[in-house]
Amino acid sequence: MISARAYTAISATDPLVPGVVERRAVGPKDVLVEIAWAGICHSDIHTVRGDWGPVTYPLTVGHEIAGTVVQVGAEVTGHAVGDRVGVGCMVDSCRECANCRSGREQYCLRGFTDTFNAIDRDGRVTQGGYSTHIVVDEHFVLRLPDAIPFQKAAPLLCAGITTYSPLRHWNAGPGKKVAVVGLGGLGHMAVKFAHAMGAEVTVLSQSPRKREDALRFGADHYHATGDPATFERLANTFDLIVNTVSAPLDFDAYLKLLALDGTIVNVGAPPEQVPVTLFTLFANRRSFAGSTIGGIAETREMLDFCAEHGITPEVEVIRAADVNKAWQRVLDADVRYRFVIDIATLAD
Amino acid sequence: MISARAYTAISATDPLVPGVVERRAVGPKDVLVEIAWAGICHSDIHTVRGDWGPVTYPLTVGHEIAGTVVQVGAEVTGHAVGDRVGVGCMVDSCRECANCRSGREQYCLRGFTDTFNAIDRDGRVTQGGYSTHIVVDEHFVLRLPDAIPFQKAAPLLCAGITTYSPLRHWNAGPGKKVAVVGLGGLGHMAVKFAHAMGAEVTVLSQSPRKREDALRFGADHYHATGDPATFERLANTFDLIVNTVSAPLDFDAYLKLLALDGTIVNVGAPPEQVPVTLFTLFANRRSFAGSTIGGIAETREMLDFCAEHGITPEVEVIRAADVNKAWQRVLDADVRYRFVIDIATLAD
Repeated sequence: MISARAYTAISATDPLVPGVVERRAVGPKDVLVEIAWAGICHSDIHTVRGDWGPVTYPLTVGHEIAGTVVQVGAEVTGHAVGDRVGVGCMVDSCRECANCRSGREQYCLRGFTDTFNAIDRDGRVTQGGYSTHIVVDEHFVLRLPDAIPFQKAAPLLCAGITTYSPLRHWNAGPGKKVAVVGLGGLGHMAVKFAHAMGAEVTVLSQSPRKREDALRFGADHYHATGDPATFERLANTFDLIVNTVSAPLDFDAYLKLLALDGTIVNVGAPPEQVPVTLFTLFANRRSFAGSTIGGIAETREMLDFCAEHGITPEVEVIRAADVNKAWQRVLDADVRYRFVIDIATLAD
Repeated sequence: MISARAYTAISATDPLVPGVVERRAVGPKDVLVEIAWAGICHSDIHTVRGDWGPVTYPLTVGHEIAGTVVQVGAEVTGHAVGDRVGVGCMVDSCRECANCRSGREQYCLRGFTDTFNAIDRDGRVTQGGYSTHIVVDEHFVLRLPDAIPFQKAAPLLCAGITTYSPLRHWNAGPGKKVAVVGLGGLGHMAVKFAHAMGAEVTVLSQSPRKREDALRFGADHYHATGDPATFERLANTFDLIVNTVSAPLDFDAYLKLLALDGTIVNVGAPPEQVPVTLFTLFANRRSFAGSTIGGIAETREMLDFCAEHGITPEVEVIRAADVNKAWQRVLDADVRYRFVIDIATLAD
């Protein structure tokens, strides 16, 4: 067993506190990663708060991980000591179902193993990246291209792939009108990707205050959804709407913004049921869809795409001791656009 | 003006009664059709009952029309006196919007003109096919291939195209698993089409009682949705589910039957909002969609497909005087599978 220092949740409501997580000994196909940077995702908070189901405490969260390989198992072929690598939302999957076999581990029919708060194959609860070390099967460890700045890499492993995957799947590109709902950690990556893919990009955000940022990230247009005229003006416009907001929206209103054969793909979600009107789907043959992170091969492709196009997230680096303050700022939507914990400060 | 005999609704609740509808004089691009056969669609009843919005009475419904051309306007090029033709759910559209220009008149951005209960360009309310004659712009009149039996042609113009179009759009064919929910007027056509397209077809129907019919129409499998085991057994199975039921369903339960990248396309719909769970869409990257009839070019393609593959609806021919009894049987789901009114009996 390997003891790693960590920032840990001891209940749904207490602040995170310094602690220790035990990592399994490095198996023949495992990689031991010394974590350098860990992104803060809203999912971390939802999970700890119990919004998405039962939690086993103490729990260390974090699924945006960038670090350095410090040990490899005897059978590891894809990674070597010293490599800069990333780990995202998955640390395992069944590898046998139709979806795993086709490289869509994120849709593993038995459920992939989440990086935290899941039952690992050794029966223990997985613990995430707010931590100095992690042991992961090499298949779920991603080599980082040299062109990606180390301290900005971590958010690509969740915010990046979660938006890249649906944009690719629904063919964002030249001639396509893509709207991004919400300009947060996920939304700002969606704008950068969709722009780099060649689509005409519109940001739909509550207030006008993020307009300049949106245009700087590559958006062609920006509309405040607080203004009802937005919904009239943009009726029947978009081929694809990527919804990154996890609060419930008036989905019928957004569906009406879709042009013929348009799709709303949700990557953020409230856990409760949401109402939609079928007659709104009938018009323009619209689709209402969901997408979950991306497969390992696609994550590799996304990292290469970032390296090629110079795409990085906007990050604010914090010390580990400031993680509770950062969580509050995430809840207050006061972050532009992703916090990254400097894990070296966990030693202090 | 041309006076046509008709069976007409005088209120939301009264039985239909014999009456007269006035048709406009045949304009330069118009075709006068002597109607021989009119299908009874559940939409006829929904409309008259006011389920889908306000109604102008008296109203003659019916949008599954087969007849013979008896007069053409001076500029008509596509039809000649004596032709056997069909008219479906649309009698006009703007012809100018992006969707009309691309041949998707059913998604006209200004709204196509319904065959009944819509405002026509002359400002009058359109009147449907339970009637001896109708005047329609030639673009919305479809020549019937000789191989299609005349008295079975009418239901193709709504039940046929409404199911053919989404099956084509979502690529039903060899290697695809397609489920059809509901085995009524639309559902039985969906089974015949999906089978002829080469898909593996499953019927999901409330009770086991239509199993034999389903298999005869080309279904490979049949499952009763009244049995909860059906939903466990078929989880993650289908590439496409065509839902023909217009009552609210437990959509989350049906969504879970979709395999990776599967879609539920609704062609029947309750007017109220329906609840879906986004986390169910996230799994397998599922889509929840709607589809409306089909364009004119696609309707022509569908008619040719029927002629080529010998596909016809199952019809029960009735006399006009029995239309109220037939409506009650539609409401009781006691029809296998489409009533067709012999319009010649309107003269009696």
